[in-house]
Amino acid sequence: MFDDNYFMKQALAEAKKAQSQGEIPIGAVVVCQNQIIARAGNQTETLNDVTAHAEMLAITAAANTLGGKYLTECTLYVTVEPCVMCAGALSWAQIGRIVFGARDEKRGYHVFATNALHPKTTVLGGVMETECAELMTRFFQNKRSK
Amino acid sequence: MFDDNYFMKQALAEAKKAQSQGEIPIGAVVVCQNQIIARAGNQTETLNDVTAHAEMLAITAAANTLGGKYLTECTLYVTVEPCVMCAGALSWAQIGRIVFGARDEKRGYHVFATNALHPKTTVLGGVMETECAELMTRFFQNKRSK
Repeated sequence: MFDDNYFMKQALAEAKKAQSQGEIPIGAVVVCQNQIIARAGNQTETLNDVTAHAEMLAITAAANTLGGKYLTECTLYVTVEPCVMCAGALSWAQIGRIVFGARDEKRGYHVFATNALHPKTTVLGGVMETECAELMTRFFQNKRSK
Repeated sequence: MFDDNYFMKQALAEAKKAQSQGEIPIGAVVVCQNQIIARAGNQTETLNDVTAHAEMLAITAAANTLGGKYLTECTLYVTVEPCVMCAGALSWAQIGRIVFGARDEKRGYHVFATNALHPKTTVLGGVMETECAELMTRFFQNKRSK
């Protein structure tokens, strides 16, 4: 039951919640020993803060839950490939594993900084890719047609 | 009077304040029309949060002061070259100009992501380099000798 799809669905739920608040629909959860220890959606509009990406908020919340800065035993699930900022933060957090949904060919970290992550971090992309990508595509289509 | 050295001295004051709280001595200020609109020192230990670099806190505080997410008319002064995370954040903020003191040959953004910044951002490194670098060197020497 607790597989990558299960946790990505949880991240998708956060993305949809963010969207309902007028945010770009990106969501993330941090999982440790099959338990979700942090959940966050993108909050850049609500907080008026470019640093308030779902991943950043999830990292801060996870460290708070664990009582330690490092997330070596954790997996971050995020609906869209992390940007350079978030990849840098995940590197400082020494996150064990990253699972993302849709690739971001414009602002994804692989475009700018392929080596930004901690060398011990493993990455899996493309989990529930269609659902994650469609959420973004529909959001921007709606925005343009307004 | 209000030149790059003046504002870097203010960033250095934030770095020293951070050091007195047991933090790695890095400080930053954000300047808009010759006015300091945000000040921050590194807070990763105090907040138990890898994302709490001086630059990140200064970006958030500056956006809060201005009431807008973008810092196109602002200059960030920081005592050490920003890391990948902070460079990514500065890119999202579309900061106008970055002035840094000491170069960071291990974790500076130029090592991992030379194109991470916004194309319109200008960068000047090496302002009060000796003072900024010495603060870091002494801090880590003290740490090792303990």
